[in-house]
Amino acid sequence: MIYFDSAGSFPVLDEVKSSLIESINNYYANPSSDHAAGTEAHDEIEKVRELIAGMIGASTSEIVFTSGATESNNLALKGLLNSQVTEGKKHIVTSQIEHKCILSICSYLEKIGYEVTYLSPCSTGIISSSSVLEALREDTALVSIMHVNNELGTINPISEIGKLCFENSILFHTDAAQSFGKLPIEVDELNVDMLSLSAHKIGGMKGVGALYVRDARDIDITPVIHGAGQEIGIRGGTVATPLITSLGKACEVFPNQYRNASFTGLKELLETELNARGITYSINGSEGLPHIISLSLPDIDVMTFLLSHRSEFSLAQGSACSSKEVEASHVLKAINFNREKAERTIRLSFDFNTTTDSVKTLVEKLWRFYSN
Amino acid sequence: MIYFDSAGSFPVLDEVKSSLIESINNYYANPSSDHAAGTEAHDEIEKVRELIAGMIGASTSEIVFTSGATESNNLALKGLLNSQVTEGKKHIVTSQIEHKCILSICSYLEKIGYEVTYLSPCSTGIISSSSVLEALREDTALVSIMHVNNELGTINPISEIGKLCFENSILFHTDAAQSFGKLPIEVDELNVDMLSLSAHKIGGMKGVGALYVRDARDIDITPVIHGAGQEIGIRGGTVATPLITSLGKACEVFPNQYRNASFTGLKELLETELNARGITYSINGSEGLPHIISLSLPDIDVMTFLLSHRSEFSLAQGSACSSKEVEASHVLKAINFNREKAERTIRLSFDFNTTTDSVKTLVEKLWRFYSN
Repeated sequence: MIYFDSAGSFPVLDEVKSSLIESINNYYANPSSDHAAGTEAHDEIEKVRELIAGMIGASTSEIVFTSGATESNNLALKGLLNSQVTEGKKHIVTSQIEHKCILSICSYLEKIGYEVTYLSPCSTGIISSSSVLEALREDTALVSIMHVNNELGTINPISEIGKLCFENSILFHTDAAQSFGKLPIEVDELNVDMLSLSAHKIGGMKGVGALYVRDARDIDITPVIHGAGQEIGIRGGTVATPLITSLGKACEVFPNQYRNASFTGLKELLETELNARGITYSINGSEGLPHIISLSLPDIDVMTFLLSHRSEFSLAQGSACSSKEVEASHVLKAINFNREKAERTIRLSFDFNTTTDSVKTLVEKLWRFYSN
Repeated sequence: MIYFDSAGSFPVLDEVKSSLIESINNYYANPSSDHAAGTEAHDEIEKVRELIAGMIGASTSEIVFTSGATESNNLALKGLLNSQVTEGKKHIVTSQIEHKCILSICSYLEKIGYEVTYLSPCSTGIISSSSVLEALREDTALVSIMHVNNELGTINPISEIGKLCFENSILFHTDAAQSFGKLPIEVDELNVDMLSLSAHKIGGMKGVGALYVRDARDIDITPVIHGAGQEIGIRGGTVATPLITSLGKACEVFPNQYRNASFTGLKELLETELNARGITYSINGSEGLPHIISLSLPDIDVMTFLLSHRSEFSLAQGSACSSKEVEASHVLKAINFNREKAERTIRLSFDFNTTTDSVKTLVEKLWRFYSN
């Protein structure tokens, strides 16, 4: 089977697997324990905290480990409502193309009395800072705009958005699950107050991630998971040392591998092959991260192709996270795709195992299907 | 270093490590994806769901995977408040000897308008069903009493408590982190409506667990982590296949190993050795799970012993989860230990690596320390 991930995930790196097992064997103790074994585990975790903080220009005390970007997003959006900084403010600004979990959190917040403005992207899939500015109100508590869109690969101008949030004294959260380790991030330069990240988008394990919270120690954040005081009281639960040290390993090795991988070359090859076979196509969204591609094939019945090739290719049509429900992707809807056009769109992403042969085979099979 | 876990955790079993790596390699795809690789990962997860459901007499649709028992406890206590079944009810019954995370959740619930009754245990560390019955009110929404106490190993009469909750139409949750895989559990016989469990207490990975929710599909539970519809909409986030399949492996192999391990023998040896050395001691709490021991040594300055032996023994004095704060354990306080008595208490648990030599060495070192 040829595997094209659809959600920008990267299979667990070999270095991460080794680190995971090493950590299971060496740092088994509960890192909250006072004995030497507990302290050693604790120290390993603190190294990773320092590493991640360093990667985004934060302080170590501003990094909170979670079970992944979805939990981080929940903590960011729910945790700071009702704090001093947002007191009495009942309005949230986000976008129509956020990850589904942000939309799900916002829908919940609407039920409990918040008002949410969902910004439309422009046709190239970008949330403009001017649209954010227009949406701000006296009672806006929080703006949450993702850094890189998981379906289009498009990059939002979060530096501009962060600046105007800062100027208007409004908290700014960004879901950086798709960009962390791939694009340079400096939370101060970007004026980001909270940032979510996930291990499995950079070759780490599913089930671990982190949230950056500016001045986490000084802010009254309500935990999503209340616990026994772990993570400066912000996130409860026994801290999962092996998952975190393996996230640290992913942070160490992934960015360089990503920089050296020729995803742009693979994307160009895809286009060359499609052109050579005479298959009409378009790539949706403006130029963004090259490993994430939303590919429309107006002359191909993509649904039937995917069904008849489901043992040959791992590829998605809708958003992977909600693909058990048959509906067109909310991201494509937001850039004005009708259902038919959305159905003729393939969502794929490359990882370090994607070869030129994989790309060629995909196009060849599309062409055969198309020609029959 | 001789390792005595203090929290009833079991180091990751070799079978679990193998299963973890196998799952990382074979079931990398997002289990929510519709393609063959996604379906395979999904099917592996469903096998584990079935396995766990079978172990506790539940239906597969009643098992929700989480990041561990702390998250499960949060979901159980926060998720069902404001549902049809608890509407308008503002009272919760729990105990003083619950895991710290339950106390932390309850403290939060008090802040948002709930009233919580914290039951005292009797002197042997047991929460009696009569004390639960006495505490019930017209507006009691939920009773949450742990199955086995993590510090004393004592077993609460949850069958009796479940029965009276059922008779009074009150939801009953039990934190079974310490008992799952060790004691027989049948949710119908016990009249349990929600049950939390954790992988790392049965030789699985830290960072994964589950919540049993009776009739989960028919109940309006509010997620703690809102997401993209995963886990029948109750728990968001990419489902962490390798963590879950490795939990499944722990469920397969742990119970038998636990049954065959001679923890009772180790406990008896500990007492024999202490007697032989003439060290005064008492074991706190009534007879419970034999691998968890709370050992008071009135003639020994336990704090100094632990500090001077912190490279030789992994042992805890307070509750491991909050041991960065120096305070006597809340469990010992609840059975009327004063600070001095609590300070002269060691909390230890045995795992499959604990040998008779480990126990003998501990007692010998205690004796030497005592004799000097």
